[in-house]
Amino acid sequence: MSVKLRLFRTPPKKIGLSPGTIEYIGETRHDEKIRLTLISYDLQNFSEEEIVEEQLDSILKQAGTKWLDINGIHNPQIIEKIGKTFDIHSLVLEDIANTTQQPKIEDYDDLIYIALKMFYVDSNNEIKMEHINFVVKEKILISFQEFRGDVFDPVRKRLRDGRKKIRSGQTDYLMHALMDSIVDNYYHVINRMGEKINSLKKSITYNANKNNLLELDKLYDEILVMQNSLEPLNSIIPELQEFDSKLFHEENHLYFRDLQDHITQTSASIVTAKEKLSSINDYYLAVISNRTNEVMKTLALVATICVPITVIAGIYGMNFQYMPELSSPHAYPIVLSTMAIVGGILFGYFKKKKWI
Amino acid sequence: MSVKLRLFRTPPKKIGLSPGTIEYIGETRHDEKIRLTLISYDLQNFSEEEIVEEQLDSILKQAGTKWLDINGIHNPQIIEKIGKTFDIHSLVLEDIANTTQQPKIEDYDDLIYIALKMFYVDSNNEIKMEHINFVVKEKILISFQEFRGDVFDPVRKRLRDGRKKIRSGQTDYLMHALMDSIVDNYYHVINRMGEKINSLKKSITYNANKNNLLELDKLYDEILVMQNSLEPLNSIIPELQEFDSKLFHEENHLYFRDLQDHITQTSASIVTAKEKLSSINDYYLAVISNRTNEVMKTLALVATICVPITVIAGIYGMNFQYMPELSSPHAYPIVLSTMAIVGGILFGYFKKKKWI
Amino acid sequence: MSVKLRLFRTPPKKIGLSPGTIEYIGETRHDEKIRLTLISYDLQNFSEEEIVEEQLDSILKQAGTKWLDINGIHNPQIIEKIGKTFDIHSLVLEDIANTTQQPKIEDYDDLIYIALKMFYVDSNNEIKMEHINFVVKEKILISFQEFRGDVFDPVRKRLRDGRKKIRSGQTDYLMHALMDSIVDNYYHVINRMGEKINSLKKSITYNANKNNLLELDKLYDEILVMQNSLEPLNSIIPELQEFDSKLFHEENHLYFRDLQDHITQTSASIVTAKEKLSSINDYYLAVISNRTNEVMKTLALVATICVPITVIAGIYGMNFQYMPELSSPHAYPIVLSTMAIVGGILFGYFKKKKWI
Amino acid sequence: MSVKLRLFRTPPKKIGLSPGTIEYIGETRHDEKIRLTLISYDLQNFSEEEIVEEQLDSILKQAGTKWLDINGIHNPQIIEKIGKTFDIHSLVLEDIANTTQQPKIEDYDDLIYIALKMFYVDSNNEIKMEHINFVVKEKILISFQEFRGDVFDPVRKRLRDGRKKIRSGQTDYLMHALMDSIVDNYYHVINRMGEKINSLKKSITYNANKNNLLELDKLYDEILVMQNSLEPLNSIIPELQEFDSKLFHEENHLYFRDLQDHITQTSASIVTAKEKLSSINDYYLAVISNRTNEVMKTLALVATICVPITVIAGIYGMNFQYMPELSSPHAYPIVLSTMAIVGGILFGYFKKKKWI
Amino acid sequence: MSVKLRLFRTPPKKIGLSPGTIEYIGETRHDEKIRLTLISYDLQNFSEEEIVEEQLDSILKQAGTKWLDINGIHNPQIIEKIGKTFDIHSLVLEDIANTTQQPKIEDYDDLIYIALKMFYVDSNNEIKMEHINFVVKEKILISFQEFRGDVFDPVRKRLRDGRKKIRSGQTDYLMHALMDSIVDNYYHVINRMGEKINSLKKSITYNANKNNLLELDKLYDEILVMQNSLEPLNSIIPELQEFDSKLFHEENHLYFRDLQDHITQTSASIVTAKEKLSSINDYYLAVISNRTNEVMKTLALVATICVPITVIAGIYGMNFQYMPELSSPHAYPIVLSTMAIVGGILFGYFKKKKWI
Repeated sequence: MSVKLRLFRTPPKKIGLSPGTIEYIGETRHDEKIRLTLISYDLQNFSEEEIVEEQLDSILKQAGTKWLDINGIHNPQIIEKIGKTFDIHSLVLEDIANTTQQPKIEDYDDLIYIALKMFYVDSNNEIKMEHINFVVKEKILISFQEFRGDVFDPVRKRLRDGRKKIRSGQTDYLMHALMDSIVDNYYHVINRMGEKINSLKKSITYNANKNNLLELDKLYDEILVMQNSLEPLNSIIPELQEFDSKLFHEENHLYFRDLQDHITQTSASIVTAKEKLSSINDYYLAVISNRTNEVMKTLALVATICVPITVIAGIYGMNFQYMPELSSPHAYPIVLSTMAIVGGILFGYFKKKKWI
Repeated sequence: MSVKLRLFRTPPKKIGLSPGTIEYIGETRHDEKIRLTLISYDLQNFSEEEIVEEQLDSILKQAGTKWLDINGIHNPQIIEKIGKTFDIHSLVLEDIANTTQQPKIEDYDDLIYIALKMFYVDSNNEIKMEHINFVVKEKILISFQEFRGDVFDPVRKRLRDGRKKIRSGQTDYLMHALMDSIVDNYYHVINRMGEKINSLKKSITYNANKNNLLELDKLYDEILVMQNSLEPLNSIIPELQEFDSKLFHEENHLYFRDLQDHITQTSASIVTAKEKLSSINDYYLAVISNRTNEVMKTLALVATICVPITVIAGIYGMNFQYMPELSSPHAYPIVLSTMAIVGGILFGYFKKKKWI
Repeated sequence: MSVKLRLFRTPPKKIGLSPGTIEYIGETRHDEKIRLTLISYDLQNFSEEEIVEEQLDSILKQAGTKWLDINGIHNPQIIEKIGKTFDIHSLVLEDIANTTQQPKIEDYDDLIYIALKMFYVDSNNEIKMEHINFVVKEKILISFQEFRGDVFDPVRKRLRDGRKKIRSGQTDYLMHALMDSIVDNYYHVINRMGEKINSLKKSITYNANKNNLLELDKLYDEILVMQNSLEPLNSIIPELQEFDSKLFHEENHLYFRDLQDHITQTSASIVTAKEKLSSINDYYLAVISNRTNEVMKTLALVATICVPITVIAGIYGMNFQYMPELSSPHAYPIVLSTMAIVGGILFGYFKKKKWI
Repeated sequence: MSVKLRLFRTPPKKIGLSPGTIEYIGETRHDEKIRLTLISYDLQNFSEEEIVEEQLDSILKQAGTKWLDINGIHNPQIIEKIGKTFDIHSLVLEDIANTTQQPKIEDYDDLIYIALKMFYVDSNNEIKMEHINFVVKEKILISFQEFRGDVFDPVRKRLRDGRKKIRSGQTDYLMHALMDSIVDNYYHVINRMGEKINSLKKSITYNANKNNLLELDKLYDEILVMQNSLEPLNSIIPELQEFDSKLFHEENHLYFRDLQDHITQTSASIVTAKEKLSSINDYYLAVISNRTNEVMKTLALVATICVPITVIAGIYGMNFQYMPELSSPHAYPIVLSTMAIVGGILFGYFKKKKWI
Repeated sequence: MSVKLRLFRTPPKKIGLSPGTIEYIGETRHDEKIRLTLISYDLQNFSEEEIVEEQLDSILKQAGTKWLDINGIHNPQIIEKIGKTFDIHSLVLEDIANTTQQPKIEDYDDLIYIALKMFYVDSNNEIKMEHINFVVKEKILISFQEFRGDVFDPVRKRLRDGRKKIRSGQTDYLMHALMDSIVDNYYHVINRMGEKINSLKKSITYNANKNNLLELDKLYDEILVMQNSLEPLNSIIPELQEFDSKLFHEENHLYFRDLQDHITQTSASIVTAKEKLSSINDYYLAVISNRTNEVMKTLALVATICVPITVIAGIYGMNFQYMPELSSPHAYPIVLSTMAIVGGILFGYFKKKKWI
């Protein structure tokens, strides 16, 4: 029920469709039912109900601000139905159903379309990604999530609790609240990423092995995916403010500035994480070089000391009949001492070179 | 019948020609006939026929929107003939016949010239490249392809099927449809590139060898070629919108914005692929360093343990007449034990150092 | 009582709070009391006193320029109280209590909010970081420090001493003086960083080991943290000057230009330090490679000379009954000479190759 | 008679001359005579003659467009004479005589000065560089070349042949034709560079050695020199179009746009070549690491198998009197088998580790 | 009497001084006397004299353009006296006395302040640095040098010689002449840097050792210092031209454009030198890897051939009583041949692998 951050593993896509053709591009998931939840509210009233496709037409007749939350985008028919009901351009519908669509904002006079990526840490402490879309109109905001999730629960709770600020606001403030809850999650994802990087560094320091490389590579992929998805966000809020749209009220500009600020910080953290990860690859190489160096020094020490001694022993192990030294009673101790001296000199040489 | 992505293998070119001289610069292919296909359409009518050079003059007299598709640019005479018939500047004709021309857009008041690179995955799963040109006038769009191909078939089908949007549109919408079918292919090329990168990574992880380096180098070349060809595309659509041209109608701006969006995503993916590939080179080095380190450790272990034992054996293999130990009945077991102890200590040292 | 520069070790944060909720995000420190110091001054008068929460309301009634210094931001109640008393927007209060907030400046018509990071070298010669906030209004400047510290003492002294420039100035000049004292510290932090880098380089040169890598990694983290915190500063003063604010008087523009100049220099130094540090990683690798090379050469020299001699000795140590050489009286000296010659040739080969 | 592309080998230069002092800075070449060629032409007439210094004064009186080509800039007197005759600012003359001057364009109201670097592949397939200057006035264009060369021959031929476009054009079209013939050569230089890079890559793949490094370094120098000289070109044509100069006629803008297009492509190719070259350095390191790894594996295999066997042989070569195994008739075959088994096990270990 | 280019070795600085406090920050040098030289000139007259502090007041009364050259900035009293006499803002005086101040230009309506770094090659062929300041007013230019030097001698000579251009100019032309003589020196410093880089490269190629690394590191530091000091220069002249100052006359704009051109070239050379130096680090690593590889191959060749032969010799050196081969008269020559064959095969294997 979730999407891992994998680089270059995008789902298949048909070629040659005319622009505006709604085709679901994403993980295969046929059987799952799509859930539609409608929340209507104003300062006094609040209602929350799960609706079916057929009820869509009656929504626009209701009073108050409406938030229609769609859980699942893998059914082109439903998306087309929503598109017709709320008069959404077919190019927007195409992007909604495409989970590989990068974040963007588009202004269609009477509606604003925003595509985002949500990142969150799941129960296994893995980082997951989800394609989120918002269509904002004057009286209704429609959110499209890939999966059922609880990321918008805090916003629902604030609405239910009747917090004045959000209940009196229009779709733009609701939009801000929803985006804010997504961006809030980025903070935790970055933290998790930081934990992983730190634990990888520790593992390399104390026990560098090939798995570190696989982990490093996986982290690098995750960061590249996140960077790709977060970088376009940097220009979304500024674009929003440039729009001469009646949908975005000046009184909420402060809140969107605040949101922008959080996005900028997340973006900077991703860049930092990437730089850090690159430095860890160098770190790995240095640790391995260092270890090879130490192994080499040990080998060199033992071999360099023993091999010359072996030569001496080998010489006096030869079976020539005429080897005058062999019969001398002092020869053996002299040779033994020579061996010790040669070994000592070589050992001293290593000591002097600071190789031991 | 196709061009591989090879860096720095550009075809020869004559020096000192005056600007506007039409010279075919590309793979040598003399015998192949150039095919000209003409499609005329409006909302009610549709005709599709293969024509010969001599029929070119009569085209302009036909009613409706016309699309002239040229398969092959290696015959300067035909290109010159087309140039004269449709009043195309000689600088444009020069660029059409030059397969090394990078993507660009140029505004000549009554016509717009666009040069593109098409990338596609061929039947051998290899990535291929083709030089594509569009000349857009008010009533006619002329497309120049290097080879016969089926990349525009979906557009032809939409025209044949009488889809209202495309049949009612003018040359600008047709232009968009053709560019869109090219950009659609980029998606698949990037996917294929991603597959190659992932399989290379897997191969390095489990069996690093010199062929990986050759493959890495080939992939890097392909990515550099693609980057060179895609980067200029980023500014083409924005330039198009700045043109104060009567050829591009405002109602189609949304479609070109959509196209721009796809190009930007492709471009970002290429940059990501390049970063990933650079990281894979480091990965290779780390894997090899790691393996050298392991081989070294095994060698060091065996040599460091055996060499001192060899020294002891060598000493008692010497043939001195006066070696008191030799006659002792306990000497042999004592020496054997000493050997075992020395070996054990060295083995323990390796264990402690975590080298085994 | 201080915060180390650690990458990716941010404190926990609740999810789903509405924007403007004041939540302390930082090191846990329950018991510490928050100290509030109020300084009031004009050209003639100066008073300095520690106040309690209840006295806040009476501050605004006092004459002269006022500077309220808050030591500790871990108590949301006090911050909320200050926010209400001085009419500070809840989004500002949220940022004040969040020690992970990056530097920024925000203009709220009647007040200007500035968030900064202070860096200083503590008594253990370690670099520490602190979150500092300024809220500037027409008659009062409120500064929020994370910990009690002496960084503002020189400013206090200048006020106490009755220096004309500062005593006659308004909150904007006071603001400048406080920021200047923070930026002054950056100079020393950069110097300390430089000392550390130089001593690390020396240590690698004369005794490269694994601890250097850990130190290098720690320094790199510190620099990444500093860069993240200093980069946003570059745009703060220019933004300040763009504000059409009545709070910033033109007569002080020169002083803020001077401040900007110091910030730019600090920023450039951090970039330089980072480049230098990257080069030191390469330096480490080169030093280790060099050492491995030297160890290898020694091993190769000894082994390459001794092993062939061992072969000769081994041959004449074989126990065959029919080995004619064994009985020749000249054999032993001839074999010894052969050994010397072989060794000499190999030694000469090494000399020629410049490996010794 | 030509200049190699060498980094940091600039000719000496005097210090403290006042600006505008003409001093030849370049390769020493005293004896060579400077050749002056004058071409005068209009639609009907064409004359080409070699002139001497004294004839300079009479040039301006001739009718038609004039092109004065100077072969050699090492004689300050001639340059000064030309400067006086055609009223060229002394700062321009100083730059003309300075072969280290980077490309630039300068507007002096009644004349435009352009400095360029020409690159070409000489008969030895080496890349050479030359300092080229153009002074463009309303009726005359003066070109300054360092050496006699044939790069402008195609332009001369087009003039001689009476091609209408060039014969009817003014100095700006001539200027374009000359710059175009220079930029045309870049194409071939880049191709040659690409050939060198490809052949270097092949050489590294099949026989990596130290000479590759020297070649790599030389290529890198050449690319740095080219990049330094081509990068400033990118802004020359745009600057030209910004000039509100009566010298550049609007009808030729298309041709200069075309030229700019070629320059941009060349510039992009240089950047690509540089990236490729950087990747080749990594490639070299990887190839060498790989080879060291293979050598190590062979050494480790042989040593690890043989050394333990040597230990066994050494033990039974000891001369102790009491070694019960020695007298057993089965001992020899048992020990031989043990040796084979030990060797087999170690061989199997290497197989399992995929080291062989 | 000069300052080396050392990274991160800045002199100590007091904390908490109010802005505008003049404090000498630089190398300690108490005893040296500060020399003040005054040159007054117009087209007809020229006087040059050394003056003392007390004469400062009378300078402004003199006619003509005046150039006051101060040799030494380590005496705050003199700087303060000059500041008062010529009405210079205290922030400027603070920067003059601070040798760590980076290059900048500041406009104070009636004066322009420029801080620069001078680089020059001293008599030991070492690159040295000096902090230079210019204060330009309508009738007087004051230059502040750290040390007595001869860099301005050519300008003095041109003044003394009565060159018309400089004698008739005002302070802005003098300013240009002085800056030009500083920038002229950059050319030689870059050349010297290039020589050092080339000689380092040669040394690495023929005899790579640890000293190369130290030299590389030193050069890298020098380049970082130079880059830090030259980069800000790029914006100084453009800023100068934006100033709406009556001090800079339009007739001299050409000369400042020329100066800018030289600065840009120097700046580009520094960037090139840095890139080159980075590539040399890779070069070093590759050279060392290559050499290690060669040493390894030699070791592997000798060991791999000799060790199996030793095994055979060891086997027949065992003292078993029942070794049937020992008594065979053909055994010895057979074993010797076997040894030769084994050695030959292994040698052939190395040959085939191209390791020898």
